[in-house]
Amino acid sequence: MKKIAIDAMGGDNAPQAIIEGVNRALASFKDIEIQLYGDQEKIKHYLESEERVTIIHTDEKIDSDDEPAKAIRRKKNASMVLAAKAVKEGQADAVLSAGNTGALLAAGLFVVGRIKGVDRPGLMSTLPTTNQKGFDMLDLGANAENTASHLHQYAILGSFYAKNVRGIAKPRVGLLNNGTEETKGDPLRKETYALLSQDPNIHFIGNVEARDLMSGVADVVVADGFTGNAVLKSIEGTALSIMKQLKSSIKGGGFKAKLGALLLKESLSDMKHSLDYSGAGGAVLFGLKAPVVKSHGSSDANSIYYTIKQVRTMLETNVVGQLSEAFSKETISND
Amino acid sequence: MKKIAIDAMGGDNAPQAIIEGVNRALASFKDIEIQLYGDQEKIKHYLESEERVTIIHTDEKIDSDDEPAKAIRRKKNASMVLAAKAVKEGQADAVLSAGNTGALLAAGLFVVGRIKGVDRPGLMSTLPTTNQKGFDMLDLGANAENTASHLHQYAILGSFYAKNVRGIAKPRVGLLNNGTEETKGDPLRKETYALLSQDPNIHFIGNVEARDLMSGVADVVVADGFTGNAVLKSIEGTALSIMKQLKSSIKGGGFKAKLGALLLKESLSDMKHSLDYSGAGGAVLFGLKAPVVKSHGSSDANSIYYTIKQVRTMLETNVVGQLSEAFSKETISND
Repeated sequence: MKKIAIDAMGGDNAPQAIIEGVNRALASFKDIEIQLYGDQEKIKHYLESEERVTIIHTDEKIDSDDEPAKAIRRKKNASMVLAAKAVKEGQADAVLSAGNTGALLAAGLFVVGRIKGVDRPGLMSTLPTTNQKGFDMLDLGANAENTASHLHQYAILGSFYAKNVRGIAKPRVGLLNNGTEETKGDPLRKETYALLSQDPNIHFIGNVEARDLMSGVADVVVADGFTGNAVLKSIEGTALSIMKQLKSSIKGGGFKAKLGALLLKESLSDMKHSLDYSGAGGAVLFGLKAPVVKSHGSSDANSIYYTIKQVRTMLETNVVGQLSEAFSKETISND
Repeated sequence: MKKIAIDAMGGDNAPQAIIEGVNRALASFKDIEIQLYGDQEKIKHYLESEERVTIIHTDEKIDSDDEPAKAIRRKKNASMVLAAKAVKEGQADAVLSAGNTGALLAAGLFVVGRIKGVDRPGLMSTLPTTNQKGFDMLDLGANAENTASHLHQYAILGSFYAKNVRGIAKPRVGLLNNGTEETKGDPLRKETYALLSQDPNIHFIGNVEARDLMSGVADVVVADGFTGNAVLKSIEGTALSIMKQLKSSIKGGGFKAKLGALLLKESLSDMKHSLDYSGAGGAVLFGLKAPVVKSHGSSDANSIYYTIKQVRTMLETNVVGQLSEAFSKETISND
């Protein structure tokens, strides 16, 4: 049985969306057990069956505008904190939350803890490409600063994930840079390029540019947390702006445009679907002793279902255990 | 008369698109004189009238895959180099090229030269927003690394441009960061935040996130060259990918979808138009002794026309002269 601790109170649509996602996951996956942390009464209102479910009641929760590190320290009984503690104490194998990202990062680092040898766990998501295959990018902002050695570790982390969870035999790793030539970039990029080139355990394909990410230029894209965060938010912002613009163009285009939009409805929803990557699950704070996964704050039941599915795959493939082993070897060989 | 030196041989559609843009600009603006550098015969083939035009013949040109600094040094008679030299020697007031970006940056820095007091000229473009007003962002990649003092200078440069060329009385300056709170970011961002807050000559509105740029959160967005480059390319890549996806969805959607697309044609072209920012001109290497402007490599006659219009406005408002004065004062007061 895979035991997943879930913060039932995190996210804009909690607890309803969370519990509805849980209902669906429990029905689909017979090898999971769910621990729900939060308001027992509200949880029960949406829960369809208590089979393979434990509810751990708490009134406290972390709000989206709480200062992360402080919230983790002060709200010791918050649903998110209790879920993380369950992992630390071995009662659960993984933790999932759609709540305050910063707080979950803090809970991951300070409660669950890092894999020995991983210096700076990175936030990683599977982002959409036009060929539907997606790419994993990290760090998306767990850190404001990174060294070349951190970026090298991200290449290893991302490769393990792409191989195990996404089933890519030999993931192509690209270094996000301001040009594709080997000589491009600042000292951080140049140093990272050298480290990645020399590592026989990853399939490094060189520098990649942000322009080509959505075309599927690499399976794993390595970036420092500041740049990764800016790129992620640029992609999100641009996609949202274009969709908004498309809607307003149709709205302002009169009857003809509205009829056209009606006829195009399926195609547009196909497109939206192909850009929607909730099927890939949530963002993993990767490099910790257990899967700590953040579902988007606006997650609906569907997103929660897919995030549980993702966590289940991470547990099934034991990707974190494999990483621990790989990094323990590396630590030894570095001595 | 405003004298504009133009590299007639740079860009994918040169010299045809360049000369056709020049034809249009000469007809619209009676106060400009154009110097065309390149293959005389080819230029004449497209040129409609030689009034207010001088052709300076040269067979040499810089190719898109030439190594920038080397090309500038070795190809002393390349059309781009001669155009930059004309500015240096006072025969022209500004230079425009759609050729090799790196080479134009090198020509700008080493031939035209920096304004005294500006440490690292930045590449700046006016990018589209959904409210059609646009925003100016710099540095978009002239530098791989920047200090807080450079970023402070970009805030000043961008403000002068937005005020003079875009007519925004009190441009709102935002610092691109990984969150909006004052405490966000790495040491570079924190130091820059402090500098911008203390400068009474700019209207600093705080940190802005890449997600909100296209919503028009600021008129001027300041970033280091590495991040600015990544954000620019993310915006471009995402917009292109979505458009491609939209096309392929329509194509794969059968007769109904095609009819829908036909009815939506105007609305879609409205949308495309609103995202197309060629009306704002090209990218300015800003902080040099004269306007050095890069038009996109794939520029058509229309883009060239608008870039000439932009250069003309820069000359008319004497934005570079104003900057020189501002920075000479600053240099004195810093002593």
